Amino acid sequence: MRFDIITVLPGLLESPFAHSILQRAQKKGLSEIIVHNLRDYSLSKHKNVDDYPYGGGSGMVMSIEPFAACIESLMNERHYDEVIFMTPDGKTLNQTMANELSGFTNIMILCGHYKGIDQRIRDLFVTREISIGDYVLSGGELPAAVLVDAIVRLLPGVLSDETSALSDSFQGELLDAPVYTRPADWRGNKVPDILLSGNQAKIDEWRYEQALERTRQRRPDLLK
Amino acid sequence: MRFDIITVLPGLLESPFAHSILQRAQKKGLSEIIVHNLRDYSLSKHKNVDDYPYGGGSGMVMSIEPFAACIESLMNERHYDEVIFMTPDGKTLNQTMANELSGFTNIMILCGHYKGIDQRIRDLFVTREISIGDYVLSGGELPAAVLVDAIVRLLPGVLSDETSALSDSFQGELLDAPVYTRPADWRGNKVPDILLSGNQAKIDEWRYEQALERTRQRRPDLLK
Repeated sequence: MRFDIITVLPGLLESPFAHSILQRAQKKGLSEIIVHNLRDYSLSKHKNVDDYPYGGGSGMVMSIEPFAACIESLMNERHYDEVIFMTPDGKTLNQTMANELSGFTNIMILCGHYKGIDQRIRDLFVTREISIGDYVLSGGELPAAVLVDAIVRLLPGVLSDETSALSDSFQGELLDAPVYTRPADWRGNKVPDILLSGNQAKIDEWRYEQALERTRQRRPDLLK
Repeated sequence: MRFDIITVLPGLLESPFAHSILQRAQKKGLSEIIVHNLRDYSLSKHKNVDDYPYGGGSGMVMSIEPFAACIESLMNERHYDEVIFMTPDGKTLNQTMANELSGFTNIMILCGHYKGIDQRIRDLFVTREISIGDYVLSGGELPAAVLVDAIVRLLPGVLSDETSALSDSFQGELLDAPVYTRPADWRGNKVPDILLSGNQAKIDEWRYEQALERTRQRRPDLLK
């Protein structure tokens, strides 16, 4: 699966894509993540990509021309399943959406910055607007990294132990049960006896009850 | 405001904290962001920080000892307002929570990885558990970066134009109105006439109506 990310801050995305699962997915050839510097598509001498908003007000607005030039040059090379704009007023990302997107082949992601992007970019090019949550960030770069991470870990072969992704919170209807590892006793704080019992049926039952209880307490909305 | 982030992948966080608003906030002395490598606190020869889960099952669990050593060494140096664990079963981050956290002085953030962290770390040290949304990621690093970004941009003096943060989506009850910049006509796609009219009262009215309409269509829940 291929991701083309268009941003005015390509350097910001360097380290997240060069570590952990995103790095391994690229090394294994399961995913390509290409970051494009929007300034390379600026038509102006000083490589500007933004300008003052029509109608006044604070903050700068990203211009349509550099985005259009970058998007069109990519679209000339291949078909994109979606052109996604990361924005706090988009549809809120959830696991179902991540699952759906993980079935695609080529995705383009536009990162906004400053006060926002010219509305015509959204009207003419964007096929889907996604928010990662109800909070404001300084740009679309971290949201783009979050989206790519949520998708890539679902691609077959990316996680070393495939059952690991399936038992995560949100893949079923329940949150995860608590987990413990050695030492069994840390300054008097002990691991629940049942987990040391060796009785797998009882352990599975305990985990199910704990997951249910945690979901009831923290996220009763997931049980509806 | 000071952030201490504990992670097994310090390199992943390098570029997000070295760009844009997070970089400027640190240069201006308005924020300190210190990333701690959990492996430096491992007691084992091979710098292990995880182990098999008690009770069996897939995935590795992060051990209590390295976290305890790192947390306690930090706590010996200063008081922390919150010790936050980034986890999908935490309370979902929103703008109100970001506003609240931006009033604190010292925050510690723990990033999980693998299958999860030993429940005793959560029981004994963590004062608040935060999720950035209902989706699973490969670790708590990107969520930590998202949280820090959401908070730091709210600190006085960080944004060059303070009204910019106040007019963002979610700071009021409405999503943002569409924004436009030059050119006024791009391949026949024109900026709304009203924005070129120079009549500020009419422009403000139009923006309010657009914001209201967008909120009605996309997020009627915000109007309740």
